[in-house]
Parts: sequence; structure tokens; C-alpha cells
Amino acid sequence: MRAVTFQAPGQVRVEEKPDPEVGAGEDCLVRIEASGICGSDLHIYHGRVPVEPGFTIGHEFVGTVVAAGEDVERVAVGDRVLGTFHTACATCAPCLRGDYHRCRNGRTFGHGAGLGDLQGAQAELLLVPRANLTLRRVPAGMSADVALFAGDVMGTGYHAVAHAGMLPGDTVAVLGLGPVGLCAVQAAIAGGATQVFAVDTVAERLQMAERFGATPLHLTDGEPKREVRAATDGLGADVVVDAVGDAEPLALAVSLARDAGTVSGIGAYAGKGEVPLGLAWLKGLQLRLGLANVIAHVDRVLAMLEAGRLDPTPLVTHHMSLDQAAEAYEIYDRREALKIVLTP
Amino acid sequence: MRAVTFQAPGQVRVEEKPDPEVGAGEDCLVRIEASGICGSDLHIYHGRVPVEPGFTIGHEFVGTVVAAGEDVERVAVGDRVLGTFHTACATCAPCLRGDYHRCRNGRTFGHGAGLGDLQGAQAELLLVPRANLTLRRVPAGMSADVALFAGDVMGTGYHAVAHAGMLPGDTVAVLGLGPVGLCAVQAAIAGGATQVFAVDTVAERLQMAERFGATPLHLTDGEPKREVRAATDGLGADVVVDAVGDAEPLALAVSLARDAGTVSGIGAYAGKGEVPLGLAWLKGLQLRLGLANVIAHVDRVLAMLEAGRLDPTPLVTHHMSLDQAAEAYEIYDRREALKIVLTP
Amino acid sequence: MRAVTFQAPGQVRVEEKPDPEVGAGEDCLVRIEASGICGSDLHIYHGRVPVEPGFTIGHEFVGTVVAAGEDVERVAVGDRVLGTFHTACATCAPCLRGDYHRCRNGRTFGHGAGLGDLQGAQAELLLVPRANLTLRRVPAGMSADVALFAGDVMGTGYHAVAHAGMLPGDTVAVLGLGPVGLCAVQAAIAGGATQVFAVDTVAERLQMAERFGATPLHLTDGEPKREVRAATDGLGADVVVDAVGDAEPLALAVSLARDAGTVSGIGAYAGKGEVPLGLAWLKGLQLRLGLANVIAHVDRVLAMLEAGRLDPTPLVTHHMSLDQAAEAYEIYDRREALKIVLTP
Amino acid sequence: MRAVTFQAPGQVRVEEKPDPEVGAGEDCLVRIEASGICGSDLHIYHGRVPVEPGFTIGHEFVGTVVAAGEDVERVAVGDRVLGTFHTACATCAPCLRGDYHRCRNGRTFGHGAGLGDLQGAQAELLLVPRANLTLRRVPAGMSADVALFAGDVMGTGYHAVAHAGMLPGDTVAVLGLGPVGLCAVQAAIAGGATQVFAVDTVAERLQMAERFGATPLHLTDGEPKREVRAATDGLGADVVVDAVGDAEPLALAVSLARDAGTVSGIGAYAGKGEVPLGLAWLKGLQLRLGLANVIAHVDRVLAMLEAGRLDPTPLVTHHMSLDQAAEAYEIYDRREALKIVLTP
Repeated sequence: MRAVTFQAPGQVRVEEKPDPEVGAGEDCLVRIEASGICGSDLHIYHGRVPVEPGFTIGHEFVGTVVAAGEDVERVAVGDRVLGTFHTACATCAPCLRGDYHRCRNGRTFGHGAGLGDLQGAQAELLLVPRANLTLRRVPAGMSADVALFAGDVMGTGYHAVAHAGMLPGDTVAVLGLGPVGLCAVQAAIAGGATQVFAVDTVAERLQMAERFGATPLHLTDGEPKREVRAATDGLGADVVVDAVGDAEPLALAVSLARDAGTVSGIGAYAGKGEVPLGLAWLKGLQLRLGLANVIAHVDRVLAMLEAGRLDPTPLVTHHMSLDQAAEAYEIYDRREALKIVLTP
Repeated sequence: MRAVTFQAPGQVRVEEKPDPEVGAGEDCLVRIEASGICGSDLHIYHGRVPVEPGFTIGHEFVGTVVAAGEDVERVAVGDRVLGTFHTACATCAPCLRGDYHRCRNGRTFGHGAGLGDLQGAQAELLLVPRANLTLRRVPAGMSADVALFAGDVMGTGYHAVAHAGMLPGDTVAVLGLGPVGLCAVQAAIAGGATQVFAVDTVAERLQMAERFGATPLHLTDGEPKREVRAATDGLGADVVVDAVGDAEPLALAVSLARDAGTVSGIGAYAGKGEVPLGLAWLKGLQLRLGLANVIAHVDRVLAMLEAGRLDPTPLVTHHMSLDQAAEAYEIYDRREALKIVLTP
Repeated sequence: MRAVTFQAPGQVRVEEKPDPEVGAGEDCLVRIEASGICGSDLHIYHGRVPVEPGFTIGHEFVGTVVAAGEDVERVAVGDRVLGTFHTACATCAPCLRGDYHRCRNGRTFGHGAGLGDLQGAQAELLLVPRANLTLRRVPAGMSADVALFAGDVMGTGYHAVAHAGMLPGDTVAVLGLGPVGLCAVQAAIAGGATQVFAVDTVAERLQMAERFGATPLHLTDGEPKREVRAATDGLGADVVVDAVGDAEPLALAVSLARDAGTVSGIGAYAGKGEVPLGLAWLKGLQLRLGLANVIAHVDRVLAMLEAGRLDPTPLVTHHMSLDQAAEAYEIYDRREALKIVLTP
Repeated sequence: MRAVTFQAPGQVRVEEKPDPEVGAGEDCLVRIEASGICGSDLHIYHGRVPVEPGFTIGHEFVGTVVAAGEDVERVAVGDRVLGTFHTACATCAPCLRGDYHRCRNGRTFGHGAGLGDLQGAQAELLLVPRANLTLRRVPAGMSADVALFAGDVMGTGYHAVAHAGMLPGDTVAVLGLGPVGLCAVQAAIAGGATQVFAVDTVAERLQMAERFGATPLHLTDGEPKREVRAATDGLGADVVVDAVGDAEPLALAVSLARDAGTVSGIGAYAGKGEVPLGLAWLKGLQLRLGLANVIAHVDRVLAMLEAGRLDPTPLVTHHMSLDQAAEAYEIYDRREALKIVLTP
């Protein structure tokens, strides 16, 4: 089969590899119909997340089950399925608490030996372990473009607001309008937020957020803090999502949040960063940081996608073939695309 | 001023009464623009809730502040306001826990001496105690028909699903499509429910629920239990709202709920009733009963009404003058109206 | 091996059976050191819960792993272990929400074909499926008498108060001082309840509850409702546990609970029962019914047992040999024992 | 009356002042029996929290009501009472959500014009506004030393663990064993924590924590991170309390917390600080920062003090007269005392 492999920073290559085979009882073999390139793939592409040369990358996918181990119950050969971006053991201490994203034995597709040694989804075939947990049937009539968001980017947008305890009628601000931020905007509105402020510097992204129902606020041309205060009787936003993952937007998030509000840090922070601790303490804020728990959310997210309450279609800016992967990564790296879908 | 008073079961009368006056520091006097007739007014009308003859009834209202005590801070003379159907002391043990609906010193408008001796809103003038808690400014441009739902019926619909912990993507069933049930349907959908089953026997109400986005299920012509099971992979609904308040719909609610799901009993139960305890226990259900905590919800509900995410306008079937109150109660008693709005 | 089998209502027999063998990858074979007779075994004994003649019963156990499938990771051959009273698949919809007690593929030890066809623990050897979920290592130095409570009765007592959202400083009432009720008393006190009212009619049980720190209230000689009111400034108890599982104690629970409080129905209700719905609705109560989610609680319960914060030792009134099972069941049926521990 | 007043950084003085008088309807005048010197008084003493010269300081108190406005209901003249360290309006948006500590109209005793212009409790008489919210009767037989902790330091210790959602059976680490940290240790244990690690550098404080039931860990002589890991099967602590309020202990807190655990930052942070955001994000932590919501907790805390489940007596190291206030502040500033109680 053909597969997109990491070679070196800035270099991916489509290679021929042996077809994977079902081994364990909960394994499924999936013939990939479409896979996505995600912001976290860029961390690999840039070498910030170390992956072995020759490792197949990619973790967003839709496809059809072509083989299944004897313990697979939730799906069957012939089913059209989507997957979550990682698997979990379902029995370690974090899994038992429902924190599947912190599974002690978790394995992430396409992230190298360090994150579970699980080959990626940008390929013709994908071996999926623990399929009872990791795979879901695609609802009838749902396009691959929509379905491949369920187990990753839209699940992350959903997590950003649901994990923050957002209630219908709340006011939300979202900082950073990449795919995750835009999905958080959709999730906030679909969950009943009445005012959603969307902050970025890129006009196209602000416009898309506005089409989704948000109030666009330009980070540098406007004055987000003043505008959020003015629109909330001086109180600030109930929930602020930092979809960037850096100290600067986190500081802005702290300043936008209302007293006793919640900051949801869903972007991938790294290293250390300076935080306005005094202000966060004075306000009595909760900062909820971390990766999304997509396994916990995937059924609800799928239901919302099926009902059309969430619709990531406008985020798919490029369809390319698997063989164009190198070019696709270059386009994505130049930030010319929101979501690129690869088809074998 | 003129006021609608209870006289005897089945008999209300418009009487001339002295104008009320501001006494305590947090009192407001409100000139009523519109008041509603509510299902709980029928309990008074039928004599089931005892009220003194001559007592002014009504507890849904919109109006303008014409006088205010010195401690009133949230609103001012000249403000157009709406109110919650009851007041609370904000400092007793239940209030301190946020359970304003269970205030030990709570007073309900227009429900007689037993419920706080607070004259009602179906009048030209209304004295509102604890106005800082009880009154809210009507958002600019909002009609009286919409605003008077915020502190009572729509707050109750919101409570029915929010208090049940409904999450975006959940499946909800609502039993009984009177005003509260229909508001619960709207609140469920606005909060992200993807499937809402609306159960009743009245064709017009089922149609209205369908227009709001629900799946109508006829209680007796159809098979609600079978249909909900079929639509939920055999699991049942995450949240079931009983908006009737009787043992029979509660039993149906238990049968429709998924395992470890929640039944939200918002209808006004009375006396004792036979409950399928064995089934509820086997399923591991939570039954959350009680009146709505509208004071806790009113700001979020108002925000959703202002944003058009909730819209009770279709529920207002009749506009009548205060002087027609006797006729209005007769119409309402014959169940020919969903919501009657009275204007002085 | 020898095993206690159900034969007919009122009749159990120790029989010789073939040794079970490890089959699936997550199976463990456990040599039983001690097993308990539980209140739910009486339902089988009386024929209320149908079990096939010859089926091995029992679901509380401590023992040593003597064989393990290749996928068993949490424990190893030679480990001293305890188990939860049921297993779960960890991947169905209820399991994914953390509701292991409502697993769609759950199997209960020693409850016949209808509840998963899993032979019981009152035997010399026990086959344990899904051992990664079901087994835990016994902390060093913990007696079998203590450990066999962790996965059943004490887990149920813990659930009764934790699932009700009890907070440190709360007031709790427990109705019914069988083993589960007494464990709920301990769990309430260990979790910070400052007043725990223990209601029963049996002097010995009331005395034991008092030794655990509770205020004993005789159900019929005293006036529990008056006494709870008097001790709570007229408010009622924050949490009321019905450990009996019948309509009558549930009605008492409703009357003892404070406004907006919680009734935790942990006893096994059956059929239908008359409930004071009007009062429950007026008070705004939550009724949380159902079996305990012991898999979710077992690690915390074990930690509390190890720390001595919970101690079921006083509940073990009888030690008998496996061969005396018939006599043990007779004693238990006559309510002469709280907990009987059988040793092979 | 005599009152302890701030004069200049490092300088307090006992001055003669006119007796305060009841003005508003919810005012109470309290004759002070005992008041405490608290860590936050040191911020005033050092000039970090600006207070006008001549302003009476102090916010922990026990006394007797000697006059009461007409709207005071919860207490009466002659009652022995304690107070919370601040008042709240109970009707603004944060108060309506139960966030009394973030009241928009909140006033803190003895903190100058900037925090509500409310004279302090280190005096012979104290004027208490909004007494229905701010005062509680002292349970019969409770010493002043115990009671004055309920509305401030012990309420803060309780908040540190309760607001973090600690469950019985959890593992907790507390960083910084001043009065708040030591009260957090007690609250954790009283709420069912089975392992509480207490981290500091001062031998006496470590010993006191050990007497309370904690495992003492020396910050610099030991290796807290290694020791917590070893004791938790490598998982880390469920809840970590930073009672210091600085970036360094917060970073340690992040390293001690388990995946998806909670860091409770109760110490008073100021300005900006460097936080290990990458690690906190990888672990999926919640950081809950802010002052304690003592009004929400005071009834539960009082119940636990009355039951002897919490006992701050060992923290009272000094009893001095009001006239010795200058000396008392010098002793406290040299960190020679944990809690100094002043009596007029």
C-alpha cells in the first residue's frame, strides 16, 4: 500500500509499504477513503514532535472496515467508519475516571514510537487497535469531509466549551480561528451560547466565524477587551477558549473572562510561559488546560454533525490525492489552507 | 387601580383597588403593560390552591417602574422591566445554596396569604418587593409577549433541561405540550439537543412542537416507547421531561429514559402516585422534581430570548384586555388557549 | 473443585465441579481465600432472582491469582486480589460515560444465565473475565474480611453518599441498617458528614451505627422526622439514603430530606410503589436510584479501607467453612448474621 | 472605643475612636470578644495593600450583638456571633451564581476605602452591614479561638479542597503550611482524603501537619515529587493545594498533580509568574485560582468545627490584648506566630 511518511523536518514522502494485518482480537483493518492533515501534523512536519523517519503519519480518517478481529463488536466488515485520533485501554486509572485522553496506555495514530508506535492514517490501509472504542459507524449519507472531523478537530471544539461547563445563554470568546477555534465557535453556538466573540487577525477567518454566527473581533486593529466588556455589562465572558496555545493569548483570555469564569486552554502549550497570575487569582478563574477527550465526546459530536447542528464543511479548503502529500504539507505549512483532505 | 381578583372557584372579577405604594427600601412600583395567564393560575381558579376572595392574581408581567425605594440599584424609575414569578430573600440557607425557588421567605405573586401575601400582576399597578432580585430590564426592542415568558414559563422550560444536566448532542423527550412543555422543547433544541421527541395527544400542539424542530409522537395513536427506542439504538433518551406532573406520564418518562439517564419532573405533582420504582432502580435513573429556579436562570433565558434562540411568540394565542379577565379565564379553562396576554 | 450451588428456593448445596480454565486473554483464575454471603444472595436463595439449578453462587471474594491470560496487565499470577461483584465491557455507551453498573454487556458473578452466565465465587476456584477491570491487588496486610467488602457492600455504601453529591459538613440520614446501610453510615462519616442519623428497629444495629458515630433513631419507638427536623433547624437532611429499597422507607426519606436535597435509593426496589410525589415536587428533591457503580469507586474505597477510614470488620459476624454453606444460608435467612464469610 | 489602626508601613496604633452606630436596616453592632491577626493583615502592615492612615484593620472576629437594624433576622441582640471576612450584596450577577467572593458590591472588613470602606474588627466595637448574610450564631460551647476561624482561615482551607472537587479516598498535597495550608490539611482529612502530603521547610509546621494526620515532606531536604509519585503508583496527587501563592509553588503543584487532576491556588498571587504551561497542558490539569468563597461554606465549616472534625486550636499560638497590637504585629511579621488572638 501507499503511505505518507515522515522523512525529515520539512520532508514527507509517499512510500510503498506492506499492508498491515489484523493481529489482536479488537483490531480492525480499515481501507482509507479520506484522511485529513491537521495542525498537529505540522508539529511533526517541523520536527517539534519527534517521529522516526519512515513512520506513516496522519490521524484523521474515514474508511471501510475490510477485516476485523474476533472481539470486534461495535463495527463489522463492510461498515463505513470514522475513528478518534487516538486509542485508549479503557481500564487504567485515568480511563476508569473517563479521562481517555490521559490513558496510561494510550496510542496516537501517526505520532511515532513515543506516542504508542501506531502507524498513521494518511495511507491506503490503517490498522486500528481497540476498535470497539476507537471506531464509530458513519451515519448514513454523511460525507467524508464531515465525518473525519468527528474524532479530532470538531471533538476538540466541542471539548473546548463542554469541558468548560458552558451553559445555554452563556457568552463565549474564542481566541485563534484556525480549524479548532472555528469548530469551538460552532460548538459554542450549537450549545446555546448567545454571544460568541471570535478573535483573530486574519480577515478570512474572522469572516467565516461571522458566517457561523459569531461577532468577529480583530485582535490588533480592534480592542477585544474593551468590546467584550462593553457587550457584557462590564462583566466579561463566561467562557474563554484559547485555541492558540501560547502565553500571550492565555493572558488575553484571562483579561476577557468574567469573575469566577473559565478559561479553556485547548491549544497545544509548550514549555513555560508568563501568566497574569495575580489577575487570574483576583478574578477567581478556572484554567482548564489540555488535549480534548474526543473518545468521551464522539457520539454526541456525531449526533450534532448528523443533525446539521455542527457543519465543518466550510473548513475544508483543499481536496488532494494521497500522492500529492508533499505539496499538501507545503500548502498547509504556508497557512494557505484550513483543512486539506487527502484521498488515496 | 383595576385588578383581577379571585372571588370563588370558577369566578374572577375586575375590581377597583387602592394603588399600592412603595414601602421598603427595595420595593418598586411597576405600571403593568402586559400580564399573562398561566397554568398555575388555573389551580387558583379551580380552588385547588386556596386564595383569599378579593386577592389580586397573576404572576407574569412586563411594565415600567414608576417608583422605587432607596435601596433599588438594578433598575430605575422609567425602566421597562419584567419580573420573576416569585421573590426570594437571598440570605436564607436555601438561597445561599442558590436554591431561590426554595427560599424560606419566598413570596409568590398572586398566590394568596399562604404563599407570601403578595398581590398579583393582573392589574394596572404592581408592588414588587426585593426588586434587585426580582426585576430585570427588558432588552431594547423586545415585545411584551416575549419578555413576560422570561421569568416564568420559559424559565421553567429552560430549568427542565438545564437542571437535568442536558449536554449538547443529547436526546430529549418532552411529555405534555402545554406552554411549559413547548418551552422545554425550545430550550432543549437551543441547548444543542439533536433529537427531541415531543409527546402529546393534541394535534395542534404536536404540530407546533414539530415546527420548533421536535419529532412529534402521538401518545395514544403512536407508540412513543417503541419509537424512542428505535431512534436511539435501543438506549432511550438522555433526558425525559414530564411537563404534566402526574404519575402516569412519570411512569412513561421512566420507560423512555436511557440507563443512568435523568427524568425531569417539572409539572406540578400533587399527593401520592404509583411509580415504577423497580424499573427506575434497574435503570439507575435520577428523578429531579420540583418547581423551576427562575431567579437563577432569568439572565441566561433573557439573553437567549434577545438573541432569538428562544421564541415563545407562537405560544401567545390570545390578546385580551384586563377588563375581559373573566372571559379570558373561561377560555383558558376550556384549554382553547396556550397563553393569554392581558393588557390594562 | 467444591462450589456452593443453587438447587431450588431455600436449598443450596456444595457440589464437586470441574476446575474452570482461563480462556480469553483477559481471564484470570483465582483460588478463593474467602467469599461473602450478601443480601442479594438471599434474593436468589428465595427464588426471586431466577438462577439455574446447579449454578455456582456468590459474588464477593478475595483470593490469589493462579493463572492469567496473556492480556492481563493489572495483576499477575501470585497476586492476592479482590474483585468487584460484576464485570463490564468498558466500551459500550454506558461504560463510555462511566456508568459501568449499567454496562450493556455486564456480567454479574453467581447470578445465573440471565445476568451474564458467570459462575459464582462461593467456590474453591473462580474464573474472572476482564480481569484488568474487575480485579485489584489487596493492599499489604489487609484481612480478607475487610478486602471482600471493597468491591460490593462498602462500594455500595460509598456510592450511596458520593453519588448523592454529599459534601463535608452535610447532614445525612440512613434508613435501614443492614450491611449496606451500616457501610453508608461509615462512608458518610468518613466523607465529612457531621450529623448522621441512622434509622432502624433492631437495637443491635442501632447500637453499631452509634459506635460508628451516628445518631441512632428508632423507626417506630421514636419520631425520626421530628428528631431530624429538630436537629437541623427545621431544614431536614442534605442527603437521605434509603438502604431498604421499598416504597415506605422511600416516603420517609422524602419527608426527612431538606428542600432541594437528595434521596439516594440504593436498596433494591421491585415493581411499583406509591411515592409522595407532591411532597417531593414541593421540596424540589432529587431521587437518585440504582445499583452502585462499584467499578468506578473501588480504588477510592480500597484506599479508605487501607487507611482505616472505613472498617467493615464489625459487620463480619460469622466465619464458616464452604462446606457449611447450607447452614450459613439458613442463618443468614433468619437475619441472625450481618455478614458471613466462607472459607474453602 | 479603642481600635487598632494602620498608620504607615510597619506601624499600627491603638486609637480612641467614636463608637460606630447602626444605620441601615441590616446593620448589626457587635461588641468584639476576640479578633485575629491574619496573613492578609500583613499585606496591609507592609503597605502592599494600600489602606488609609487611621483606618481600623482586622477581619476575623467573634463578639456579641449589641444593636441590630430592623431588617436583621438571622441573629438578635444578645447573640454571640462570628462573621465572615467580607460582606456581599447577594443580588448582583456573581452573587446570583453563588460566587459571593466576587460580589460586585462586596466589602471587606478592615481593608480600606478601596475594598469597600468598612472599618475593621480589631476594635472594641464593629459595625457589620448585611448581617443576615455576614453573621452566624456561635454554637453553644464553642471557644472564640475556634469560632473566629470559621469565616476566614478555616473557610479558606475548606474551600481549597472542596472547590477542587476532592472526593473521599483522594490523595491531596498541600504546599505551604501557614494557617491556611494547615487548615487545608485538616479539611482534606476531614473530607475523606486518605493520603495528605504536607510540604514546607519549617520543622514545627511539618510536625503539626503530621499531628493532623498528614505525611510531612520537607521541601528542600526531601524530594516531594519523587515521594508523591512513589506513594501514588506513579500517578500523582488528585488535588494539589498551593497555599503560598507564588509561581514557584504553583510549578511544583503542577508537577505533583496527577493527569487530569486539579491544582487549587488559594494563596494570594500577585503580578505575573512563569508557569509550566506545557506540562499543565500535557497533564490536562485544572487550575482553580482565587480567594475563598467563605460565605458559601461557613455553615458547613461551622458544623465541622462544632463536631470537632476540624479543630484550629493548635494554630492559636498567642493570646494578647488589643492594647498590645503593635507588639503583636511585630511578632507576626517575624513569623513567630501562626495565629494571634487579640482580646479587648
